[in-house]
Amino acid sequence: MRAPAVMLALVTFVVSACQPFRPLASLIVIGQHVITMNPAGAVLSPGAIAVGGDDGSTILAVGPPEEVVRRFAAREILDASSEVVLPGLVNTHTHAPMVMYRGLVDDLALMDWLNSYILPAEAKTVSPDMVRVGTRLAALEMIESGTTTYADMYYFEEEIAKATREAGLRGVLGQTVIQFPVADAKTPADGLARAEAFIRTFKGDSLIVPAVAPHAMYTLDAAALRAAADVARKYDVPVLIHLAETEDELKQARARHQMSPTAYLESIGFWGPRTVAAHGVWVDDEDIAILAKRRVAVSHNPESNMKLASGIAPVTTYARAGVTVGLGTDGAASNNDLDMFEAMRQAALLAKLATRDPTAVPARDALAMATIGGATALGLDALIGSLEVGKRADLLTVATDSARETPLYDPISHVVYVARGTDVRTTIVNGRILMRNRRVLTLDSSTVIADANRVAGAVRAAVAR
Amino acid sequence: MRAPAVMLALVTFVVSACQPFRPLASLIVIGQHVITMNPAGAVLSPGAIAVGGDDGSTILAVGPPEEVVRRFAAREILDASSEVVLPGLVNTHTHAPMVMYRGLVDDLALMDWLNSYILPAEAKTVSPDMVRVGTRLAALEMIESGTTTYADMYYFEEEIAKATREAGLRGVLGQTVIQFPVADAKTPADGLARAEAFIRTFKGDSLIVPAVAPHAMYTLDAAALRAAADVARKYDVPVLIHLAETEDELKQARARHQMSPTAYLESIGFWGPRTVAAHGVWVDDEDIAILAKRRVAVSHNPESNMKLASGIAPVTTYARAGVTVGLGTDGAASNNDLDMFEAMRQAALLAKLATRDPTAVPARDALAMATIGGATALGLDALIGSLEVGKRADLLTVATDSARETPLYDPISHVVYVARGTDVRTTIVNGRILMRNRRVLTLDSSTVIADANRVAGAVRAAVAR
Repeated sequence: MRAPAVMLALVTFVVSACQPFRPLASLIVIGQHVITMNPAGAVLSPGAIAVGGDDGSTILAVGPPEEVVRRFAAREILDASSEVVLPGLVNTHTHAPMVMYRGLVDDLALMDWLNSYILPAEAKTVSPDMVRVGTRLAALEMIESGTTTYADMYYFEEEIAKATREAGLRGVLGQTVIQFPVADAKTPADGLARAEAFIRTFKGDSLIVPAVAPHAMYTLDAAALRAAADVARKYDVPVLIHLAETEDELKQARARHQMSPTAYLESIGFWGPRTVAAHGVWVDDEDIAILAKRRVAVSHNPESNMKLASGIAPVTTYARAGVTVGLGTDGAASNNDLDMFEAMRQAALLAKLATRDPTAVPARDALAMATIGGATALGLDALIGSLEVGKRADLLTVATDSARETPLYDPISHVVYVARGTDVRTTIVNGRILMRNRRVLTLDSSTVIADANRVAGAVRAAVAR
Repeated sequence: MRAPAVMLALVTFVVSACQPFRPLASLIVIGQHVITMNPAGAVLSPGAIAVGGDDGSTILAVGPPEEVVRRFAAREILDASSEVVLPGLVNTHTHAPMVMYRGLVDDLALMDWLNSYILPAEAKTVSPDMVRVGTRLAALEMIESGTTTYADMYYFEEEIAKATREAGLRGVLGQTVIQFPVADAKTPADGLARAEAFIRTFKGDSLIVPAVAPHAMYTLDAAALRAAADVARKYDVPVLIHLAETEDELKQARARHQMSPTAYLESIGFWGPRTVAAHGVWVDDEDIAILAKRRVAVSHNPESNMKLASGIAPVTTYARAGVTVGLGTDGAASNNDLDMFEAMRQAALLAKLATRDPTAVPARDALAMATIGGATALGLDALIGSLEVGKRADLLTVATDSARETPLYDPISHVVYVARGTDVRTTIVNGRILMRNRRVLTLDSSTVIADANRVAGAVRAAVAR
């Protein structure tokens, strides 16, 4: 693998030296393979990406290395010529600070897990400090595993937004609205007021897209659900909600409303565009037709759904119905990590098992869900999700040189079936290098981890009591 | 995490200096947590293991660090005091050299995948050189991901045994017997003759347990199946076979023999002790009763079964019926790796989904399948599978200090739901350190990978033709 790398560097240098009058790119990334995820599905082997523009955040060119270096001078050349380059991964559903509850309790049913352990732990330990420390830990993990954009639903979302911006990640962040009293709001109205203030503060930010996050149809009454949707419409921001995660939820909805969760939300006029429904496991054809008609996207969370035995979201049916599907990890308390490579691999494997068709969700489709699919779900496909001229430079490079990574016949198969978060070498968001050769530049790892271990001590004590 | 490490080292030194007359251990490993997997399920936090005996392969003590260092002087102390120590992982089903076909073709049905791609590729490329190169690559990957014992079924098994021994891994290696002509045998009789020669050569080896591997009931006639079982009885060696992997296999068996694959093998007197049946997906209660009665163990391969859409092995039913279940990765062509951490995690998640019970196969049970369960399946539970005095020192240490690995509330949950093969720091087999701080000592990684890339070129050319 090193011979081509040396040759590429040489070609780059020679071509570069012979072309003195070229526009300046802030960065050129040269990869052994560049998976663009553009509409034509182009994979360049090798390939290069020039990054620049006014604030250095924009993709200026994608093409063969000789061509890109002929057209652009570069302030920096990032040599990933023995690596695979791909669009940044988009996590469409998580609760970042819940990394603080990673592995606290496992192997329980959702309602038991939630009501007997997670909610009591949250009641005792959620605070602005815990949220800030947890988000920093989550951001470190996400940068280290190639996630460049994530959608979040939690409390004290302004702390999450600040920590996300400092880490340099892109976030679609939703302040939670929920019926019962929580750490940052006594009532849904309090939560909504917080959500409005949050949206006003962060609207127009280059990295943060503020959103509103009504928790679920079973934890909010119709008035609060409608009010949340109204706030989203008023400010034109995304809505993030849990939907049809468990059979219990379906049964409860039928008992209370004589309707499925999806149909109930339709009946109260909740659904609007730029809405991401997380899980979407317990849906029938009518529900899927509603989601397609309202252009609601689904966040598929295969690992969490397996671990909590919630069921399997019908992703191939969604795709046929024209519903956009993105991938999510869910919170680390039910996963137990934020690694989108695991989510991709699991989405590909689970679809095969569920449909009994090993051709279902081939590697390319799983990668699409984790990139352009997620971007589309969040309403950000004009900006991110693929490596195309004019989009933001959100990308990562993946190593190919260990025993496990040998041989490499097909870069897309490699990324989905072999690569792990730990194989990511470089993570770039908005043209800024957040991690270089596995060293995170925007967060001090040891401080972040020490802070997290301090908060974990408090969590341990709270649960022991 | 470093403070306890320093304290432990200090305590170790002081205690060590004050106790001059102690027996000598070749190695003492000190861990933050030591998961013993002994019958009592002991986890020592912290814990230590003394290794020694005539050839330095035996566990002399397992206990609190102060106690172990008080009792034994040590030639070397391995400080894993910020790591989790656990028994070496046992992979009960793979085809090591098939790492050469990793990612060659994906997203196809088993019979299409096998007949249209894998078998033709094998016909053109399997040779002693390919098998040697592939096994060395697989061994490197296994050492790097904490597998210390593996069961293999392939061709030119003597090359596999030599490479396995050189790498320092423990192997239960079965020479394949199959009806149609393959690279190393024209007929089942040829294959059996090779198997006998192989068994005679390696019987009594300290690392290699020779076995016979009749491929499956659908690729061998009754005479050849019986002959293979007879060879195993004659030499008292294990039998490795594929069983009831796909619904097609079940249907074919019913059509040809009016019986299930399991019942058919019972009817011809095939089943005997020390037999490992790989997959065991399409079985009913009668089949399970046969396997229990004959004390046949099952190798559960969750990832391969998902990827090829084969189905789900009923592992909780097996456990209730008293059938020993080990875990396997299957060959890398259908996985696409040899990482037993992935197999554990998938076994835990898949059982929950399959039974719709999130308490099914909790972390401890998944870890048991990958350690003592696998050891028992292979008839090696007196030697390996747990950290107990008198057993061989096969063990590994797992890091706990990255963002993804923070916080750590429960070491068993951590190992199953968070750890990956890449988190393994140290791998020890038979008391010998094969990998130290992620540097493999028994294989030259760059040579192994360069050789593999050379063979991959030939595979690529063979498939292109």
